[in-house]
Amino acid sequence: MKLVTAVIKPHKWEEVREALETFGITGMTVTEASGYGRQKGHTEVYRGAEYDVSLVPKIRVEIVTEDEDVKDVVDVVVKAAATGKIGDGKVWVVPVESVVRVRTGEKDEAAL
Amino acid sequence: MKLVTAVIKPHKWEEVREALETFGITGMTVTEASGYGRQKGHTEVYRGAEYDVSLVPKIRVEIVTEDEDVKDVVDVVVKAAATGKIGDGKVWVVPVESVVRVRTGEKDEAAL
Amino acid sequence: MKLVTAVIKPHKWEEVREALETFGITGMTVTEASGYGRQKGHTEVYRGAEYDVSLVPKIRVEIVTEDEDVKDVVDVVVKAAATGKIGDGKVWVVPVESVVRVRTGEKDEAAL
Ligand SMILES: Nc1ncnc2c1ncn2[C@@H]1O[C@H](COP(=O)(O)OP(=O)(O)OP(=O)(O)O)[C@@H](O)[C@H]1O
Ligand SMILES: Nc1ncnc2c1ncn2[C@@H]1O[C@H](COP(=O)(O)OP(=O)(O)OP(=O)(O)O)[C@@H](O)[C@H]1O
Ligand SMILES: Nc1ncnc2c1ncn2[C@@H]1O[C@H](COP(=O)(O)OP(=O)(O)OP(=O)(O)O)[C@@H](O)[C@H]1O
Ligand SMILES: [Mg+2]
Ligand SMILES: [Mg+2]
Ligand SMILES: [Mg+2]
Repeated sequence: MKLVTAVIKPHKWEEVREALETFGITGMTVTEASGYGRQKGHTEVYRGAEYDVSLVPKIRVEIVTEDEDVKDVVDVVVKAAATGKIGDGKVWVVPVESVVRVRTGEKDEAAL
Repeated sequence: MKLVTAVIKPHKWEEVREALETFGITGMTVTEASGYGRQKGHTEVYRGAEYDVSLVPKIRVEIVTEDEDVKDVVDVVVKAAATGKIGDGKVWVVPVESVVRVRTGEKDEAAL
Repeated sequence: MKLVTAVIKPHKWEEVREALETFGITGMTVTEASGYGRQKGHTEVYRGAEYDVSLVPKIRVEIVTEDEDVKDVVDVVVKAAATGKIGDGKVWVVPVESVVRVRTGEKDEAAL
């Protein structure tokens, strides 16, 4: 299993969620975050305001998923989150050694 | 060392914290999150309101711990967080390669 | 690639960010968190208030970086975040298997 973490633009969150639901994701965890990415001298625009300073509001999404679905999950997020403008986001994948569903105690693949 | 991440129901946070303290955990990091889990047609209840839409308030707890304690830490969290109702939570474990205590510069096991 | 997660004192965040920028970090993600660390009977002070209870406001910083820079990134954070007082923070490192830049689809080292 793997943990896919995606940091995306807030206004893209609904589209990303819908794309993940359509793909068949069974769970995800969302937190509000602030992001700093390389802007190469450009400014990033959020709700009409220009952020040339470093911190811009972002949504951080975590998805624990099976190995065989990781590539697709990353592709689904990237496709749904992209606008072509700077600051579109970053997605990274980390190995997961075990998972438990709290209600039932089910483990690993059965817990997803 | 491992990183145990638990996403639990907010009203179970106090119980989980107390159980972890009793177990002897020396540190943890807590963030507010929103969660989306499979509901199989059921709705999840939070503070008297039904959430049939996907996002429900959750507490995200991170605990970096020694390898030999991981199983117990996960068990402690699962036991304290369970209510038997849907949405009880998910716990996952990720490998940690190094840890530092900022105040002293102590490393790895000594930093926990 | 690695994911460096640092949980630091809020009033040290500016210094940590500046030190990371000076080092040449190209991106990071920041979330507000609450922390619980071992206090050995001491209390932790935040904005003039004593927190002898367990939860103290913290800033959680995530930096995905190349293997060869991990040691330096951790050192930069530790040096900038330290005050010598309890509660200064904890830094941990987790392996990252892949990274994507959403705007361009670039992967791994090229995505950082
Ligand atoms: N190395 C990194 N580590 C952790 N988080 C990162 C990193 N790089 C970017 N992020 C997070 O992802 C968000 C989006 O990054 P962003 O899309 O600006 O990446 P970028 O590499 O600067 O690409 P672009 O040139 O398209 O702006 C950032 O605001 C930050 O929250
Ligand atoms: N695959 C996942 N990846 C990341 N976070 C998840 C995942 N599944 C669940 N979560 C998080 O854990 C929270 C609780 O999940 P939940 O207990 O609803 O899991 P479930 O598998 O739907 O089990 P149940 O059938 O008991 O509801 C979710 O709201 C979400 O924040
Ligand atoms: N084992 C841990 N797992 C996850 N987060 C931790 C852990 N230990 C500490 N933290 C986080 O780091 C923050 C700072 O920890 P802290 O500096 O108090 O560590 P400590 O080991 O108690 O060191 P000190 O003796 O200097 O206080 C905590 O408030 C918490 O958010
Ligand atoms: Mg950028
Ligand atoms: Mg559920
Ligand atoms: Mg402490």
